[in-house]
Amino acid sequence: MIAQQINCVACAAALALGVSAWSAQAADDPLPSWNDGATKQAIVEFVEAVTTEGGADFVPPEDRIATFDQDGTLWVEHPLYTQAMFALDRVVELAPKHPEWKTKEPFKAVLTGDREAMAKFGEGDWAEIVGATHAGMTTEQFVKIAGDWLAKAKHERFKRPYTELTYQPMLEVMDYLRDSGFRTYIVTGGGQEFVRVYSEPVYDVPVEQVVGSSIATKYEEQDGKPVLMREPKVFFIDDHTGKAIGINLFIGKRPYAAFGNSGGDREMLEWTGAGDGARLKMLVLHDDAEREYAYGPANGLPDTKVGTFSQELMDEAKQKGWVVISMKNDWKTIFPADQ
Amino acid sequence: MIAQQINCVACAAALALGVSAWSAQAADDPLPSWNDGATKQAIVEFVEAVTTEGGADFVPPEDRIATFDQDGTLWVEHPLYTQAMFALDRVVELAPKHPEWKTKEPFKAVLTGDREAMAKFGEGDWAEIVGATHAGMTTEQFVKIAGDWLAKAKHERFKRPYTELTYQPMLEVMDYLRDSGFRTYIVTGGGQEFVRVYSEPVYDVPVEQVVGSSIATKYEEQDGKPVLMREPKVFFIDDHTGKAIGINLFIGKRPYAAFGNSGGDREMLEWTGAGDGARLKMLVLHDDAEREYAYGPANGLPDTKVGTFSQELMDEAKQKGWVVISMKNDWKTIFPADQ
Repeated sequence: MIAQQINCVACAAALALGVSAWSAQAADDPLPSWNDGATKQAIVEFVEAVTTEGGADFVPPEDRIATFDQDGTLWVEHPLYTQAMFALDRVVELAPKHPEWKTKEPFKAVLTGDREAMAKFGEGDWAEIVGATHAGMTTEQFVKIAGDWLAKAKHERFKRPYTELTYQPMLEVMDYLRDSGFRTYIVTGGGQEFVRVYSEPVYDVPVEQVVGSSIATKYEEQDGKPVLMREPKVFFIDDHTGKAIGINLFIGKRPYAAFGNSGGDREMLEWTGAGDGARLKMLVLHDDAEREYAYGPANGLPDTKVGTFSQELMDEAKQKGWVVISMKNDWKTIFPADQ
Repeated sequence: MIAQQINCVACAAALALGVSAWSAQAADDPLPSWNDGATKQAIVEFVEAVTTEGGADFVPPEDRIATFDQDGTLWVEHPLYTQAMFALDRVVELAPKHPEWKTKEPFKAVLTGDREAMAKFGEGDWAEIVGATHAGMTTEQFVKIAGDWLAKAKHERFKRPYTELTYQPMLEVMDYLRDSGFRTYIVTGGGQEFVRVYSEPVYDVPVEQVVGSSIATKYEEQDGKPVLMREPKVFFIDDHTGKAIGINLFIGKRPYAAFGNSGGDREMLEWTGAGDGARLKMLVLHDDAEREYAYGPANGLPDTKVGTFSQELMDEAKQKGWVVISMKNDWKTIFPADQ
C-alpha cells in the first residue's frame, strides 16, 4: 500500500510534467526482474560504458550489435527443443501418408511414443525426421504449418504455449539494449525459417535479424509463380563454430554483447570477446529445478543432452571473465506471466 | 544567371522560414539527374503509392525493402567487373611467391597480359584465380587487402577510382527510397566480403545489408585469438536463382522494389514481382557508348560476356511490365563528378 501511495504521488507529479509515471519508473530500473548483484551490475555497467559519449569504451550506434542464442537463453528448451517437439508432432500428423513409418526407425519410435528410444536419437535420426517434416514444401507453406502448430501447441509441464515460455529477465535485457541503441539479433542453432515465424511478435526481433541453421531451397515455378522449395539437404549449421561464421556471414560486424547458455554458444562468446573495448559475454546457467529446470553438468548439476553446459565451458567462462547468470539467484521472476 | 537569381529569392524566403533553400529544392525533385518521362515517373508513382497511408498499396515501413544489384546497376562493370580486376592485380602481386604460375594457366595468361586468353576464361579459370587471391587468409586480412587496392586502383578509361564510378541517378534512387522509409540492400553476384569493404562509404549501405556470393570460412585459433580463415571453397553463389534464394535467406522479406541490369537479376525481379500490391521492377540498359558503354545484345546492342542483357530478358521485361531504364535517354548525368 505504501508503494502504491508513493506511485500515486509520482504519478501526479509526472502527469503535471507531461510524462508517464510508469515510464519514469521503468527508466530508473531497466531490469526490474533481476535481483541486485554483480550479474545485473555487469549489464548496467557495460551499457553505460558503451553509450557514454567521450568515454573510452563508447561505441557508435551503428556498431551496437547484440546477439542472443534462443533455446535455453531466451526461452525454455527442456525437456526438448520446441522445434524438435514440432517435428515429432508433424511425424504423427503425416503418418497416415507414410504407412511404412510404422515399421521404420526413427519414425516407429516417434509413432509408438517410445521416449527411451527417442532420447537416444543421433544426428542421423534427427536429419531424417527434419527431412521428412521440414522439406518438400515451399517456404510459404512451411511458415504456415509452423505458425499453425505454434498457435495450438503447449508445453507439457507449464501448460502454456511455447511462445509464452520466454524468460522475462532476458526480454528486459533485449529491451534495455534496444533502448540503448543496440540492434538485437537472434543467433540460433535452431531453424532460421522456424524462428522467424515468431521472432517479431515474441521478441520484437524482425526476421532479418534472425540468424539460424537452414536447409537448402530451390527456385521453381509453380502455377506460373516462382516459389522456393525446401529441400531435405542441410545448407548451414549455425551452432558451435557456425555461430561465429554465421555472425560474420549474416551481420558482418562483431557483436559487443553476446548471450548463450550451452556449449553451442562457446565460439560466439569467444568471437565477441576477441574484439577491442568493452564486450559483454553472458551465459545462462539453469540451476533452478523448482521454477524451471536444473542441468549442467557444470557445478555438479544433472547432466543432459539438451543444452549441455559442461564444466569445461564453466572453466573457460571463469578464465575469460564471462558472466554466468544463475537463474535461481539472479532472476526475480522467470516467465512474463509470473510478474 | 536567371536561375541563380530565382534561387537567391527562394533562399531568402527559405531562410526567413528557417529552412534550407537547397533542401527545399531537393525535396521538390528527389531525382534531379533523371530526365522527365515515363521511367522517372514510374519511380515517383511507386514511392507515392506505397507511402500513402490509407492507400490501397500502402506498405508499413518495416516491410519497405529495396534490393539493388551492384555491378552494372550501381556502378560501372565494363570492361570487366571491379572484383575481377582486383583478382587479376592480385595474381600479378602474388606471382613472385608462385614461380609455377609462369607456365600454368590461367595464371600465365594473366601474367603475360594475354587479353584474348583472359576474355575466354571460363568458370573453372575464375574459380582458380579466386581461390588463389581471395582465400588462404583471415577475413580481416582480406578486408585490409581489398581496401588498400580500392584506395589506389583506377579504371582504365575513366582514370578515376572505381568507387567514384557509381551512377548518380541510382544514388538518388537509393536516397529517395531511404528518405521514404525503405531499407536499401545490395544483392550482388560479387563477393559479399569484397562489397562490404566499401558499401557504407560509397552507397550508405551498412555491411549487414549486403547480400552476395561467398566462399566458406573456417573458425580457427591464431596466437590465442579466434579468426575466420577464408577457404578456397564456394559456399554460396548469389546470382540468377541464387538472388531469390539469398534474399529469402538473408532478409526473409520479399522486396517491394528491385533493380538490376542483366540476366543474373532475372529471378530477383520475378521474385519481387510475385508479391502482392505495387512492386517496382527496373533494369538498367547500357545503351550509351559515349558517356559509358553500350551492350546487350538486347535491342541490337553489341553482345558481351560481362553483364549480358539478352533479348529474352527484354521480352520478359516487356511482358511483365518491368521498367527498362535507358541510360542514354533517362539519365541526365552518369557519374557524381559530372554534376
